[in-house]
Amino acid sequence: MSNNTITDEAMIRELVEDWARAVRDKNFDGILAHHSPEVLMFDVPPPLESKGIEAYRETWDLFYSAQPDPIAFDIQRMDVVAGAGVAFVTALMRCAEKGENEERIKLDFRLTIGLRKINGCWMILHEHHSVPAT
Amino acid sequence: MSNNTITDEAMIRELVEDWARAVRDKNFDGILAHHSPEVLMFDVPPPLESKGIEAYRETWDLFYSAQPDPIAFDIQRMDVVAGAGVAFVTALMRCAEKGENEERIKLDFRLTIGLRKINGCWMILHEHHSVPAT
Repeated sequence: MSNNTITDEAMIRELVEDWARAVRDKNFDGILAHHSPEVLMFDVPPPLESKGIEAYRETWDLFYSAQPDPIAFDIQRMDVVAGAGVAFVTALMRCAEKGENEERIKLDFRLTIGLRKINGCWMILHEHHSVPAT
Repeated sequence: MSNNTITDEAMIRELVEDWARAVRDKNFDGILAHHSPEVLMFDVPPPLESKGIEAYRETWDLFYSAQPDPIAFDIQRMDVVAGAGVAFVTALMRCAEKGENEERIKLDFRLTIGLRKINGCWMILHEHHSVPAT
């Protein structure tokens, strides 16, 4: 493994941690800071897919409407596989949802992120969030 | 874009098409032909994750138990993002499920695949299959 690969892995790990913190802070500039205009989102709720940065932004409005405060968006485990110009991340995540009596219920979900390095900066091209179907 | 990138993209596209055909044919050798022993699976049904090739294989037993014959596992759209040593694939897929009266119902789902090139061959390290939560 080259030093570059280690550096890329560390850069991506920090990028994802910063993004998750921005989600918890409802900081939209931070959430969108490293996303491609063409980002493809497969989200937990419908629709089947959301294409482009505007549609991606709107998925967060929906997310916040269903989340009790304070916002949880915690990385339980993260693995980064980074090459010279393309990388992907797998993670187990935890947020929350409101129960029938507005009580707070933990919600575990899976996250995959696809990235490409553009002009020396890692950019998110794709996110896939899901819970198992019951 | 270099010739190598084009070749890698074409190789990965063919690998995924061959794998989907193997799923339709219930050909387990074909399904497992290009998977890492450490593959991490986020599948449509529970559990939250399946780690390793044995657990991955078992997810297909569960899949076939829920699918009406003939098996549908069709790539509706596929995009490949390939670097020199790491790549990811996003796809919209269609399979089927049995309705209450055993009738055949179309089921659209999302698929993300993460790959690494090992000794010149692309290997699948990760798959994420899901449907939106309702």
